Amino acid sequence: MSTVPKRPKLDGEANAAEEEPENAETLEQIDACQNEIDALNEKASEEILKVEQKYNKLRKPCYEKRSELVKRIPNFWVTAFINHPQVSGILDEEEEECLHALNKLEVEEFEDIKSGYRINFHFDENPYFENKVLTKEFHLNSAAASENSDWPASTSTPIQWKEGKNLLKQLLTKPYGNKKKRNSEYKTFFDWFSDNTDPVNDEIAELIKDDLWPNPLQYYLVPDIEVEPEEEDENEEEAFDDDDDGEDGEEDEEDDDDK
Amino acid sequence: MSTVPKRPKLDGEANAAEEEPENAETLEQIDACQNEIDALNEKASEEILKVEQKYNKLRKPCYEKRSELVKRIPNFWVTAFINHPQVSGILDEEEEECLHALNKLEVEEFEDIKSGYRINFHFDENPYFENKVLTKEFHLNSAAASENSDWPASTSTPIQWKEGKNLLKQLLTKPYGNKKKRNSEYKTFFDWFSDNTDPVNDEIAELIKDDLWPNPLQYYLVPDIEVEPEEEDENEEEAFDDDDDGEDGEEDEEDDDDK
Repeated sequence: MSTVPKRPKLDGEANAAEEEPENAETLEQIDACQNEIDALNEKASEEILKVEQKYNKLRKPCYEKRSELVKRIPNFWVTAFINHPQVSGILDEEEEECLHALNKLEVEEFEDIKSGYRINFHFDENPYFENKVLTKEFHLNSAAASENSDWPASTSTPIQWKEGKNLLKQLLTKPYGNKKKRNSEYKTFFDWFSDNTDPVNDEIAELIKDDLWPNPLQYYLVPDIEVEPEEEDENEEEAFDDDDDGEDGEEDEEDDDDK
Repeated sequence: MSTVPKRPKLDGEANAAEEEPENAETLEQIDACQNEIDALNEKASEEILKVEQKYNKLRKPCYEKRSELVKRIPNFWVTAFINHPQVSGILDEEEEECLHALNKLEVEEFEDIKSGYRINFHFDENPYFENKVLTKEFHLNSAAASENSDWPASTSTPIQWKEGKNLLKQLLTKPYGNKKKRNSEYKTFFDWFSDNTDPVNDEIAELIKDDLWPNPLQYYLVPDIEVEPEEEDENEEEAFDDDDDGEDGEEDEEDDDDK
């Protein structure tokens, strides 16, 4: 026989407090402890943020230098995209063609890091659109979140397609209405770029920010792997893990969850 | 490191490195940049780790004090478990009974944090098993990973069930062989505790470590979800009153007996 109420929640606690004053007192003390722990957690987060900000500043000149060097290698970014196991999945043939004009990619975290980031795609003049820069920007966490119904949100530069060159596929015929649509289901790069219905779970943006941007060279130089199409993902990920020794491994494992 | 793209999918780009020695040189320079970035990333990780270690030390006395206080509240942990939206899902009725004897829960990250953690469940003497402490331990990231085929791994204390009191369900009849089984599919707490087939995606362990452990009070005190406030309050009070007579007295007796 159970000798305890199944759900001695607020009621139970309230009553226990009335009947046994020492319980109420103990709960007060636990609460005080909990406040101390919370305060320490907050201080820890702040310190970690400062470390991240410091290193963002230190990394910046390296990234800028890298961008300048990368510009000298024809088709560097499109090659890295093509060789990336997940990003390659959203490139259709004509887009690959178009992305030959992509001469610079930049990821910029906002100053406070946690509130969001933007990805800038810089293009040479090209036969597809007029823009020189296409930006996709994510506003994710915000102190003003509760007052701001537009949060979280992403925005993307409207693409000024040249006559007859519009590469948008699905968005043209059928706007993404389903918030639950997974980014991994995108079929094309510009559909991904132009869609802002689910900014929180933008897998492609996260791969660009956390995987391609920190080290695109590993994808540019990735060795050819000959595999059966079905096993491709798995094997490429193994290859990736081998190259990478760790840090990003966890993210990959998370991705594996979804298979 | 090879300075030639191994997978030159794009015509023209394929031979670029071979035909233009300056490409090779540029790639060397990009590689040097990349090494700088990697080194900065590593230093950032180390600094963040130090912050985490520092705060783990600072939090420890708070957690210890909280543990002592929690022991004075009968059924604190089992109540928090029952009120936790996900963890409650793996508690069957007899296990709830058994978990009344859980007087202390501890989460200990290993000194280097990233290599793993353990969860200690401390029990009063109880009718179900002989153990005083049940520990589930996760070895996740390790510098020795590549040499160690036993990594990643989890271990759990073998439970010394008392005669006829074994609460294991699924494991008894059908060992989990399928690595893809998601932890969310566990039906019972002790099945979860005893299974070590998929240490990397242990959802329940992560919820205990990252959600329950940092703040169990919020679950202990969680208010009932208000559906129809008037009716609900009334019913709950009744339910509580009904249970109330037996509750504290008998429970205390049992505890006393066991001690």
